[in-house]
Amino acid sequence: MSKPHPPIVYGEYLRLDLLLASQSPKSVEYGQPAHDEMLFIVVHQAYELWFKQILHELSSVMALFRADSVDERSIGVAVSRLARVVEILKLLTDQLRVLETMTPLDFLDFRDMLVPASGFESVQFRLIERKLGLNPAARVPLERAEARRTAADAKLLAEAEGESSLFVLVERWLERTPFLELPGYQFWQSYRDAVDRMLETDRRTIEETGGTPEARAAQLTELDVTRASFDGLFDESVHARLVAEGRRRMSLRATLAALLIHLYRDQPILHVPFRFLTTLVEIDELLATWRYRHAQMVHRMIGSKIGTGGSSGHRYLLSTVERHRVFADLDNLSTFLISRRALPALPADVERRLGFYYPRD
Amino acid sequence: MSKPHPPIVYGEYLRLDLLLASQSPKSVEYGQPAHDEMLFIVVHQAYELWFKQILHELSSVMALFRADSVDERSIGVAVSRLARVVEILKLLTDQLRVLETMTPLDFLDFRDMLVPASGFESVQFRLIERKLGLNPAARVPLERAEARRTAADAKLLAEAEGESSLFVLVERWLERTPFLELPGYQFWQSYRDAVDRMLETDRRTIEETGGTPEARAAQLTELDVTRASFDGLFDESVHARLVAEGRRRMSLRATLAALLIHLYRDQPILHVPFRFLTTLVEIDELLATWRYRHAQMVHRMIGSKIGTGGSSGHRYLLSTVERHRVFADLDNLSTFLISRRALPALPADVERRLGFYYPRD
Amino acid sequence: MSKPHPPIVYGEYLRLDLLLASQSPKSVEYGQPAHDEMLFIVVHQAYELWFKQILHELSSVMALFRADSVDERSIGVAVSRLARVVEILKLLTDQLRVLETMTPLDFLDFRDMLVPASGFESVQFRLIERKLGLNPAARVPLERAEARRTAADAKLLAEAEGESSLFVLVERWLERTPFLELPGYQFWQSYRDAVDRMLETDRRTIEETGGTPEARAAQLTELDVTRASFDGLFDESVHARLVAEGRRRMSLRATLAALLIHLYRDQPILHVPFRFLTTLVEIDELLATWRYRHAQMVHRMIGSKIGTGGSSGHRYLLSTVERHRVFADLDNLSTFLISRRALPALPADVERRLGFYYPRD
Amino acid sequence: MSKPHPPIVYGEYLRLDLLLASQSPKSVEYGQPAHDEMLFIVVHQAYELWFKQILHELSSVMALFRADSVDERSIGVAVSRLARVVEILKLLTDQLRVLETMTPLDFLDFRDMLVPASGFESVQFRLIERKLGLNPAARVPLERAEARRTAADAKLLAEAEGESSLFVLVERWLERTPFLELPGYQFWQSYRDAVDRMLETDRRTIEETGGTPEARAAQLTELDVTRASFDGLFDESVHARLVAEGRRRMSLRATLAALLIHLYRDQPILHVPFRFLTTLVEIDELLATWRYRHAQMVHRMIGSKIGTGGSSGHRYLLSTVERHRVFADLDNLSTFLISRRALPALPADVERRLGFYYPRD
Repeated sequence: MSKPHPPIVYGEYLRLDLLLASQSPKSVEYGQPAHDEMLFIVVHQAYELWFKQILHELSSVMALFRADSVDERSIGVAVSRLARVVEILKLLTDQLRVLETMTPLDFLDFRDMLVPASGFESVQFRLIERKLGLNPAARVPLERAEARRTAADAKLLAEAEGESSLFVLVERWLERTPFLELPGYQFWQSYRDAVDRMLETDRRTIEETGGTPEARAAQLTELDVTRASFDGLFDESVHARLVAEGRRRMSLRATLAALLIHLYRDQPILHVPFRFLTTLVEIDELLATWRYRHAQMVHRMIGSKIGTGGSSGHRYLLSTVERHRVFADLDNLSTFLISRRALPALPADVERRLGFYYPRD
Repeated sequence: MSKPHPPIVYGEYLRLDLLLASQSPKSVEYGQPAHDEMLFIVVHQAYELWFKQILHELSSVMALFRADSVDERSIGVAVSRLARVVEILKLLTDQLRVLETMTPLDFLDFRDMLVPASGFESVQFRLIERKLGLNPAARVPLERAEARRTAADAKLLAEAEGESSLFVLVERWLERTPFLELPGYQFWQSYRDAVDRMLETDRRTIEETGGTPEARAAQLTELDVTRASFDGLFDESVHARLVAEGRRRMSLRATLAALLIHLYRDQPILHVPFRFLTTLVEIDELLATWRYRHAQMVHRMIGSKIGTGGSSGHRYLLSTVERHRVFADLDNLSTFLISRRALPALPADVERRLGFYYPRD
Repeated sequence: MSKPHPPIVYGEYLRLDLLLASQSPKSVEYGQPAHDEMLFIVVHQAYELWFKQILHELSSVMALFRADSVDERSIGVAVSRLARVVEILKLLTDQLRVLETMTPLDFLDFRDMLVPASGFESVQFRLIERKLGLNPAARVPLERAEARRTAADAKLLAEAEGESSLFVLVERWLERTPFLELPGYQFWQSYRDAVDRMLETDRRTIEETGGTPEARAAQLTELDVTRASFDGLFDESVHARLVAEGRRRMSLRATLAALLIHLYRDQPILHVPFRFLTTLVEIDELLATWRYRHAQMVHRMIGSKIGTGGSSGHRYLLSTVERHRVFADLDNLSTFLISRRALPALPADVERRLGFYYPRD
Repeated sequence: MSKPHPPIVYGEYLRLDLLLASQSPKSVEYGQPAHDEMLFIVVHQAYELWFKQILHELSSVMALFRADSVDERSIGVAVSRLARVVEILKLLTDQLRVLETMTPLDFLDFRDMLVPASGFESVQFRLIERKLGLNPAARVPLERAEARRTAADAKLLAEAEGESSLFVLVERWLERTPFLELPGYQFWQSYRDAVDRMLETDRRTIEETGGTPEARAAQLTELDVTRASFDGLFDESVHARLVAEGRRRMSLRATLAALLIHLYRDQPILHVPFRFLTTLVEIDELLATWRYRHAQMVHRMIGSKIGTGGSSGHRYLLSTVERHRVFADLDNLSTFLISRRALPALPADVERRLGFYYPRD
């Protein structure tokens, strides 16, 4: 509380000397000033500032989950910090609207001067993807941007590659969570019975609600896929096959733990873990939305021309929208939910242990 | 100004008696009240209210463009009304966030009671697509929803089918616009020369900026596609082939008129037409974003299960995101823009005619 | 799971027959169709739909808190439902942008036909204020709208007046919460010492950081006000005086419980109660923002003319922005927070009881 | 099109070395790392980046209006650039949500280390206010922040003080606009008659629609104020008195020109000037909303404590919300609009001159 610190000045604290000196339009340097280049620079710099903040949050959450036993307070802190990432990602999507006030013709005033630089070179964005845990096998390759990395940036990326991603840390936490032990064999048997009843209902729905024979056949095929998904929950070898086919990534044990958290999230002790899983999916979705809107913006700006970095930015971005999902396994849990009415009841002693100790004292 | 009208009461004016009596949760009717069904109903009703408003605006704009000669005042009015549609579509996308406060488990409390109804049955949304001019050939078929239309709704849709869509009306207006006559043969020759120089620069960019031979080859192929696009501008038969392949839809004459409006939009007389074309593209993009976010929401809600209407809503919606674009030809114009520095100058007498008469009087 | 229900049709389920038949523009009825009146109606109807949903959520939360002992599960449910109200209120503020696409001149095309109806007559909005617990003494009176209520609406309002508002229910819950017993006398003594040290620091800040003698004097006066606020925490009679002056409303006991929740919200058991209090403040703030933006919109539309209801809507709305806050006592808690570093530590046995029982088992 | 420029690297172009090195948390420097200080810094830096962009746009628009005769193309360009400022201001308001993910307790972890710096010291924000033309007489004084300016910043502000603000430039442009000459004496006489009829209708509305005698009296007083406002339009001496009282600022001649643009904005030649005036009002409103939301955020963060800069930020900000409006005269024009039905028709030759020359050729 004592304050031995020297008094602070706003502009010095924020290093405005550096910050506001870091806009250097090429069009000015080359003697053909293009009014809109300043916007182009500021928008990208704002993105990089926010990327730094996202990395700050992700790294701190990963540190919390690297502990041997993840403290329950940590989940609460993690939720707050990831909820902040959610708000930042909403802002970054809205920020595209500002860039879209630049018209294609205005962009052409300085586009050629930036060749071959490209936003795909952003190391911080790549770090965000790695820290979240984007599957390297799923990544759409982008050679040219890779080739242009500085040594320092390549080192940063290699280091990030070396550490356990948030995906891995969350998977490990789920695998170790004691909730999983709770319900026991009997539970999964009842759950499976409930699932079978639900699928049977769906089959009848398809058969009874009309449409051409072809449409019905297609839907019955879809239903078989859903049934196979459930098989993947109960049978390690089916799950292993789905992993091999790239349709699952998270371990079966972790997936079941996450499913339990979803099914019994009304229990006080699961409230915060449920929000945690939900927030991860929200981040994944917002990144996907950002990629989709980004693809739109690039198309509006240059059409199907190649980008300054020599790539068709629009097509590349579109291809990553769904493929670059990190927490698809969590997003996919809805497939396995069954109605509360069909859900097996928890044994009374288990339910008691999922409440708080205090108020009953 | 004289007011012989009887005094109005707020609640009567808005017909709140009807409006607030039109929420009838099935879960209540069936004796298993599910709290969140009210949200489900209200969200969908809010969508339908806004769809009605969008149809009101679209119909009025179409009426303006059905005139033999489209008055210059009409373009201004059309821009205002379409800009309103833009704001509504932004709202409709944000509205998904409200629905997303319902969790999958809460949805399961009443999902089965709604079978086989589906949002895809919305006649108003279908009318919006038709009035805008969604290409029937491009539409992803959705048999089951079609099959369930009431006779009245089918009639409404058939009528809409019969009238010229906004796409057709805009195309016709562009074809007749006198701006097109302005620049003459010389202009297109100079423009084509400028294009050739630009493509040559792009080719050199690809060859000089590194990457593997494979990547370079892929980019050169892309460049050939771009070049072929330009060929489609100068050669009716190439354009006809692109139309046949489903890669173009708008007539060449209309496309060139739209391109001129983009290139010379700094001329006062083209300012409002430029905004008009831009707003059409914005509507198209916002509808695509809405479809994409809608697909996400459906997936979050039911995963890969079949929807209440017997369809995999997620997959259907994803498939329509890009295919259901109406004004792709306009969005694609950026491909053909060239830098102002490379743009042929307009003859002085032409430029004079693109200004206002008044201030020089 | 069995489905004896008859099949549902989308349009019937949503009662689109009623919903889409409830737009009756007066300008059409009077033979002077004004294009924008449809927007005016639809915007207001969308507001009323959402008001119904907000009331649905508020009523359900109030029911949960009317129980003798509020179950810990209930707080979680309450947070989810109030978080939904937060999302709806964000939407309602954004919705003003759609209305703002109507220009003042367009409004004048039908404004006179609506006299003397006014949005201030909305019974549902009034019910929202009552259910939240707007202090009747603080309400800015609006006689004319009151005078025009139908008997049915007046009855609805009177009933709402009779029930305990959310404010009262939350206050009662806070007063009974067992957390309050935890820290004991010693705690409040240490807290008070920490406060005294903080205020002393603030005093020195004022004296040392320059400015004119007048400015310094003004700030020292402000500091005295802050100090007096703290006195209100420790002394029932001071608190009673602040209540009498209209500067506090919540009981001292409830206020202290809320303060403890804020100070120790990192404890797992307080995580959800903390979110609950925060969400109440967020609702209060969003309603204030909506009122402020609403005032702006009204001014843009009619300037300082009297409204159709005979009131200067702009001025009325501005006057309510701050006065109609319901949870000002909670918003004001930040005043009483002290740094974690200065915060007295909880006794170990207390801290243990604030965790979950389960994982230590 | 030839490209003699050396190839550009993304990170160098954006000066990420400077940008990402400019975050220096005091809590780290002082050995008591506070996780959320990074957010605090990044949010403020993002604001400063956008302020730089806003200044870039404002300065360019001011340069366009400093010309002796403002080219019609310039108004179009000005509208585009101010529309960009509008999008930026929306983003800056949304950005507060990100800062609000920091809780008051987290802020207290480092708040004392920042004393006495304050956001009110931002020179760029002050420059924005000056360039827009905030009336120095209306400004709420903030001595302490002023006292802490560096010499360089004080010089920047003094220079801005020396140049004509956007308000002055717009006023001058309106005064010189030829549209004003158009309608002539007869027009203003007819307009005045129409106004008198409208006010008479309003008076009858008040008298006939009930309420207590006191309420009616209050409304009649308000009506007198409205009538007096109109007197200010027709009588230079009344206008001069309103200016002296601080209730008007813009010259009468400019006000009448702006009013005409509003009344006849359907004429093609007035379309862009109308958007220009509307965009100025939108900027003013968005700045006011930002101030209001900013005040809320400060209150949520520190309650009624004094801020780090020694001020009660909340109260200061609230006091500026309405007082710091720059274009209140334009916002107020709605007061003077009358219905299109009551509006005097333009003489045919005048109307002809407000269209485009070209299409009639």
